[in-house]
Amino acid sequence: MTDHGILAPAWAATGAADLVDDDALLRAMLATEVALAEAQAELDMIPAGAAVAIRAAAVPASIDLAALAAGVRETANPVVAFVEQLTAAVRSVDMSAAEYVHRGSTSQDILDTALALLCATTLDRIADDLLACADSLAGHAERHRDTPMAGRTLTQHAVPVTFGLKAATWLHLVLDAVARVRQARAALPVSIGGAAGTLAAYHQYALDMTWASEATGNGSDPVSATLRLPALVAGRLGLAEPILPWHGIRTPLVDVGASLMVTTGALGKLAADVLVLSRTEVGEVTEERVPGQGASSAMPQKHNPVFATLVATAARQLPPIALVLFGSMSVEDERSSGGWHAEWQPLRECLRIGAGAAANAARLAETLQVSPGAMAANLRLTRGAIVTERVNAVLAPVLGKGNAKRLLAEVTAAAEQDGADVAGLLAIALEREGVVCPDVPGLFDPSGYTGVSGPLVDRVLKHFASMEER
Amino acid sequence: MTDHGILAPAWAATGAADLVDDDALLRAMLATEVALAEAQAELDMIPAGAAVAIRAAAVPASIDLAALAAGVRETANPVVAFVEQLTAAVRSVDMSAAEYVHRGSTSQDILDTALALLCATTLDRIADDLLACADSLAGHAERHRDTPMAGRTLTQHAVPVTFGLKAATWLHLVLDAVARVRQARAALPVSIGGAAGTLAAYHQYALDMTWASEATGNGSDPVSATLRLPALVAGRLGLAEPILPWHGIRTPLVDVGASLMVTTGALGKLAADVLVLSRTEVGEVTEERVPGQGASSAMPQKHNPVFATLVATAARQLPPIALVLFGSMSVEDERSSGGWHAEWQPLRECLRIGAGAAANAARLAETLQVSPGAMAANLRLTRGAIVTERVNAVLAPVLGKGNAKRLLAEVTAAAEQDGADVAGLLAIALEREGVVCPDVPGLFDPSGYTGVSGPLVDRVLKHFASMEER
Amino acid sequence: MTDHGILAPAWAATGAADLVDDDALLRAMLATEVALAEAQAELDMIPAGAAVAIRAAAVPASIDLAALAAGVRETANPVVAFVEQLTAAVRSVDMSAAEYVHRGSTSQDILDTALALLCATTLDRIADDLLACADSLAGHAERHRDTPMAGRTLTQHAVPVTFGLKAATWLHLVLDAVARVRQARAALPVSIGGAAGTLAAYHQYALDMTWASEATGNGSDPVSATLRLPALVAGRLGLAEPILPWHGIRTPLVDVGASLMVTTGALGKLAADVLVLSRTEVGEVTEERVPGQGASSAMPQKHNPVFATLVATAARQLPPIALVLFGSMSVEDERSSGGWHAEWQPLRECLRIGAGAAANAARLAETLQVSPGAMAANLRLTRGAIVTERVNAVLAPVLGKGNAKRLLAEVTAAAEQDGADVAGLLAIALEREGVVCPDVPGLFDPSGYTGVSGPLVDRVLKHFASMEER
Amino acid sequence: MTDHGILAPAWAATGAADLVDDDALLRAMLATEVALAEAQAELDMIPAGAAVAIRAAAVPASIDLAALAAGVRETANPVVAFVEQLTAAVRSVDMSAAEYVHRGSTSQDILDTALALLCATTLDRIADDLLACADSLAGHAERHRDTPMAGRTLTQHAVPVTFGLKAATWLHLVLDAVARVRQARAALPVSIGGAAGTLAAYHQYALDMTWASEATGNGSDPVSATLRLPALVAGRLGLAEPILPWHGIRTPLVDVGASLMVTTGALGKLAADVLVLSRTEVGEVTEERVPGQGASSAMPQKHNPVFATLVATAARQLPPIALVLFGSMSVEDERSSGGWHAEWQPLRECLRIGAGAAANAARLAETLQVSPGAMAANLRLTRGAIVTERVNAVLAPVLGKGNAKRLLAEVTAAAEQDGADVAGLLAIALEREGVVCPDVPGLFDPSGYTGVSGPLVDRVLKHFASMEER
Repeated sequence: MTDHGILAPAWAATGAADLVDDDALLRAMLATEVALAEAQAELDMIPAGAAVAIRAAAVPASIDLAALAAGVRETANPVVAFVEQLTAAVRSVDMSAAEYVHRGSTSQDILDTALALLCATTLDRIADDLLACADSLAGHAERHRDTPMAGRTLTQHAVPVTFGLKAATWLHLVLDAVARVRQARAALPVSIGGAAGTLAAYHQYALDMTWASEATGNGSDPVSATLRLPALVAGRLGLAEPILPWHGIRTPLVDVGASLMVTTGALGKLAADVLVLSRTEVGEVTEERVPGQGASSAMPQKHNPVFATLVATAARQLPPIALVLFGSMSVEDERSSGGWHAEWQPLRECLRIGAGAAANAARLAETLQVSPGAMAANLRLTRGAIVTERVNAVLAPVLGKGNAKRLLAEVTAAAEQDGADVAGLLAIALEREGVVCPDVPGLFDPSGYTGVSGPLVDRVLKHFASMEER
Repeated sequence: MTDHGILAPAWAATGAADLVDDDALLRAMLATEVALAEAQAELDMIPAGAAVAIRAAAVPASIDLAALAAGVRETANPVVAFVEQLTAAVRSVDMSAAEYVHRGSTSQDILDTALALLCATTLDRIADDLLACADSLAGHAERHRDTPMAGRTLTQHAVPVTFGLKAATWLHLVLDAVARVRQARAALPVSIGGAAGTLAAYHQYALDMTWASEATGNGSDPVSATLRLPALVAGRLGLAEPILPWHGIRTPLVDVGASLMVTTGALGKLAADVLVLSRTEVGEVTEERVPGQGASSAMPQKHNPVFATLVATAARQLPPIALVLFGSMSVEDERSSGGWHAEWQPLRECLRIGAGAAANAARLAETLQVSPGAMAANLRLTRGAIVTERVNAVLAPVLGKGNAKRLLAEVTAAAEQDGADVAGLLAIALEREGVVCPDVPGLFDPSGYTGVSGPLVDRVLKHFASMEER
Repeated sequence: MTDHGILAPAWAATGAADLVDDDALLRAMLATEVALAEAQAELDMIPAGAAVAIRAAAVPASIDLAALAAGVRETANPVVAFVEQLTAAVRSVDMSAAEYVHRGSTSQDILDTALALLCATTLDRIADDLLACADSLAGHAERHRDTPMAGRTLTQHAVPVTFGLKAATWLHLVLDAVARVRQARAALPVSIGGAAGTLAAYHQYALDMTWASEATGNGSDPVSATLRLPALVAGRLGLAEPILPWHGIRTPLVDVGASLMVTTGALGKLAADVLVLSRTEVGEVTEERVPGQGASSAMPQKHNPVFATLVATAARQLPPIALVLFGSMSVEDERSSGGWHAEWQPLRECLRIGAGAAANAARLAETLQVSPGAMAANLRLTRGAIVTERVNAVLAPVLGKGNAKRLLAEVTAAAEQDGADVAGLLAIALEREGVVCPDVPGLFDPSGYTGVSGPLVDRVLKHFASMEER
Repeated sequence: MTDHGILAPAWAATGAADLVDDDALLRAMLATEVALAEAQAELDMIPAGAAVAIRAAAVPASIDLAALAAGVRETANPVVAFVEQLTAAVRSVDMSAAEYVHRGSTSQDILDTALALLCATTLDRIADDLLACADSLAGHAERHRDTPMAGRTLTQHAVPVTFGLKAATWLHLVLDAVARVRQARAALPVSIGGAAGTLAAYHQYALDMTWASEATGNGSDPVSATLRLPALVAGRLGLAEPILPWHGIRTPLVDVGASLMVTTGALGKLAADVLVLSRTEVGEVTEERVPGQGASSAMPQKHNPVFATLVATAARQLPPIALVLFGSMSVEDERSSGGWHAEWQPLRECLRIGAGAAANAARLAETLQVSPGAMAANLRLTRGAIVTERVNAVLAPVLGKGNAKRLLAEVTAAAEQDGADVAGLLAIALEREGVVCPDVPGLFDPSGYTGVSGPLVDRVLKHFASMEER
């Protein structure tokens, strides 16, 4: 199966695929078997020499990946064939050590631990890229703290906002994603449960070994030893120790899924806004002009918002795919037929898409071009209507809120119809009604009606600073 | 629209619907307007008397719900019509106070805050029911800490487990759900942002008021006052103060969604296991026999697992519906056309299903009947094959792991074919090979091969105790 | 549970809810029991008088809906309680007839048939509204067959299109939806299978009856009679006869789901385009100005695109909810625990949303205001860049396609930078290169570069005409 | 990106991946450019020699796939880079022909047509495998037309069915899938629309060419020629001619998606039933015993139901992923930013999973082992309770339906409690009540209460035969 990412704008050429491809998985499976053997050796469950031999033999070159895939159709998982091949490789290094490969273990322990390792690496990468993105967004928020632009609701100009506040909104979302990614990362557990989560075979081998070591006076309590095994493997792999074996407790994986859904959801908001703001008619932001970037196969003039498109693609794809993980929580037995198996490829795909989105969003935020001039021009587009909420607030105490709103609705409708300025028509209307309103032109300055946008931006920047300290 | 729950096994007759129906929503919207007015009065933004009048008028009887629904088709949200009706009600109480209803506010502030209130109430209820469920499960885990039963993987008997470990697994999942529900609950923010998240109209009215109060020497800084407004409203409603207005930051709602997906996912695992274990052929657990409960319209003998079915229904329905919430994260502008609107009904439905599932699961756990006798009988069903992993662990050091596994595969296949005991066939085979294995019959006792199930149960119970302390 | 649609912009105030609410369901369940009894009477399976009494008693007033909902929590479906109440009602009309209520039947037969009836009514309504929408769109397509406007790809002006072609695209989608809705409607089957799809109890009662009627010489073959029963019930209810009982064959429901996904998907495209085209900066279409319609609770000037928002809401909500139906295809046994039960409420919700979307889209299409003037103005916005593909086609044979594209990319970038006309800069560049291009100004007329848009519009209108004939 | 299928039980080692991998896509893109050029040559839009050169150069070896993936991150689609490379390859064959590569075309035309080709090939393969599966299922249905077994509802024994009827149910579902796959396949259109669906550039080049050919007297109507172009390309590629360019009309792809959702939904039902029926406690069916097949890495005795697991995996994964396709229907503009792009990889994944599921299900059906003996034994498990519905039908006319059902509920509960036969307890109870019931033991024979299962099986087999004729 060749897949260079040609159909995968969400992650093509971002390096995301390398984090989770078959080679990465194989390395993680090998690392798991090595860590297991070394922890067992530390607990006197297997001879120290066996662990050395296993580490020596556990290299990617020992394993034929295509044969593992064939094994998947035989046994519904790749570990059975993998263990056979690894055992053969160990045997060729040290005949006696082969007995100790995968000792007391089960397919799910190896595969779930390996998947947790892929999650860990990828979530770390995503957190880094999200922070890079956050840095750029914080820069935009700071630089444009007080740059006024049209706020839009239900596609229509509503009231002014600042580009700083918009960037701060994106930043807040990205920090939300960082927090959830870190939390999911920290909780990723090692899987050491044995066939049905009782650690029975690990324990049985420990019992046998203890009997042997008792003879030599080196006995320890085999129950304690077995209970310590998961923590030791976890320590070697940088994963957490679970309270219980999690064969039937899939919370760690759905937490990863949820954190990635929040990640692409957050970045997708950034992308959605960039796409609107870079529309030909709006033109308030553009992606950097780089030769070739954003080109069309047909239209010479085209400069498409590519990174926003790539991120928007990711935001559309990831949540439904992550749904498969949630569907696999509610499954029967100590290991289900299909529930467990259904997680693997969607988990990989979610990691890949999430990592691609974070990389592309970091680039998007870093290179985004902002045009305060276009923002100012668009603020003038409705000839004053964009601040009628403010005028309403001033007139309501004078006219009553119902009358004020009605008058302004009429005046703005008339202004739109005639292409006239709202301020002018309003002045006439107020005069007609005998109402004195002090500074009508001043009221219509959009930059004077951005509320507390500035202090809100400051607040998010402070929140970011406090997160970075941690 | 009548909906008594006739088509809703996930929540019918659990009381869940009352938490989120139109009446509940209306009360929450009224509470929001009251809290807003009172906070504004506290900040001298509106007269104290106006807040009193608003509280007096803001009763459900003032509002015609059917008219609000009609308004939804006119303005795409129910708040425009709601504010008109509330204003009229206030006017009839205190003419002058009518001016101060919904002052500086926007539809999204009222509706999002009201939805957050529904979330809060419902998540609190869910957490309570989950803890009740956890209590019952802890009881099962304790009572059956050492009750052996068949562990099953890919539908086949695998190795023995204990019913205590199974109950502990369910308990762990339920505690996972509690943690996520509590976290989402605590983060639920008030929405006070104004039309585009700048609080501009709140601020404008504050400015006007300040000008008036300056005249009387009671002036305060209007920017500070505006920035304090969300916290004051939040305090009155038992919600959190957001860093930024969250019109475009939908993380609080997707966190609720994710916590509910984990809730039904966790409870769905319990249900899935109960359904398997209560199969006619398995019979290890049953739901309590209560007259009428579990009856069929056709078959007199039927005693169906009803609560497990209701919970399984919830687990199937909720995650796809919650997906709508995640889809609404990535939307354009200060308020999108459709993204925001798409959240409301699915959020309600998720809350309702989640609450129904928690109530039904609490009942299921409380009344579940466990049959250790049936478990013991099923453990004997494969005439020893269920502990061949253990025998393998004993024989592997003697025969080599490859040979041991091969021999045992042959022996168990022969035993299955002939309906013979594995132990007997194995003894013959070992004798043939000249291998001495000390205690073959003892090895085949399933209750001797449950690994460290007992200590694992203890660990989860301790984890539960530590959560309850908090 | 009160639900007036306050949180349901997708269907509030469209009449959609009445088609599927509990009252509608109750009528459908009653109609099913009546049709069953009458068909059984026709086949001499029950006395003719019993069918008469059942019809007389089977009125909504006989049934207490709240009690049915309570029954759902007892038996996981509303039919057990419903049959008890109906039996009591029949008994009060004709004591002896009570024996013949629901004879040989099962909960799933009644509920699935009733749901099929709700589907039928709602799909019929949807098809009508889609055709009304199609009529309006055909009008737009015809009127604006040759109205040029900017075609947009990846948010940027690409090449000219016509508004007629855009309307024709919407029309094509709506006709796609009509075809799929009709196909799903026509296939909706009656459910007459008995407890496990063998019709055994129907058959058993037929056998007994036959034995009785044989005595009177009126015997017919009970197997044939039983096999004819579904067709007779189907005929009375306007549903199709299934090949097999479909307790475990959920294709009819997923076909309904898929047809509704296509419906809101198609209408959602219309809404998405309307939302873009009505943006303040674009202004090419608007929704009709009606007082109150599109108003904001805060901003006096607001005229929001409400119907497009309502339809967009539906398009976001329906597909994930319909996913639940697909999830219920793959379930175990003759009737699953949870799979069947999970279908009911999401099916209702999909019908309701689909019907709401069709009604709102019909209104949107009918009242949409089109502004050819704004379209023309926007076509000029890029000062000629929108037709560089055409100029490229003319220059490529002269300069070579690579050179032509490069030259035009440079010229349009320069024009954008300087706010200059592309035609002017191009003329200078060509002169510099010594290239003679005959009619440069003519080439830059956007209305001359709409390809075969006109004939394509004609083609779709013809397709519509041919569908209407059927 | 290496992906051998190690994490993909849904399709590993089935050959499905080869149908849609990057190599397959590249061949389809090349075929599309060739067909376009040849059709244009046929219409005198480009020189015949150019088409010959394009065909000669359009071989996979001309294209560097990794560079295309890099291009995806530059331009958000692989076609821009692909056309550059193809043009270079053509240039090296025939300098002048390079001008005619991709003439008048656009990225979406090439990619959508190529994707339609992958769909076509894969749907054809799926239909074949589904028919093979259907053949095996028909065999089971025929052989076991009258083999009685327990029907199960809500996990409990309900009434007897036959294995023939169960197999016929699976067969019906598979035939439903075949019909939908064929329908979606037949409708797959070529995409020839140009940048915005107007075919403007194709037409412009045609105009220029016509002008040239008019000079030579070989002129044809360029509008007609342009309108004929899609049909000619479609004919060469075995695809359908669309009514309109479908850049914004994604019905063909969602139809593919829906047909695949039905496919895995149908096969998932087969898998779900097989998994239940092969449970250790049930044992009514098993997968064929083949060495290695179904083995565990830990437990020597294990013989897991592998093919059912693989199919169940597919059924869990596909529908959520297909949801992405439905989400891309409702997108803005002539080509959206992200909507189109989001379709590609999920479409591929759905095709791959669907093809894997069909291949695995064909194998599952072919090799499934059925045990009528186990079925008979399980029918005896409830000691008669499984036919109480029948007894009820016999007693109801005598005792009244309420009394009969109550009596039978009591008797079966007592029998379950005591482990007694229902028939015996019933006889005693009837005697006590003075009721004479002719043939109590005969009534309790499960094989006498399978309703019209046999004729229903015949009906489905006839339906299958009639489909095969077509």
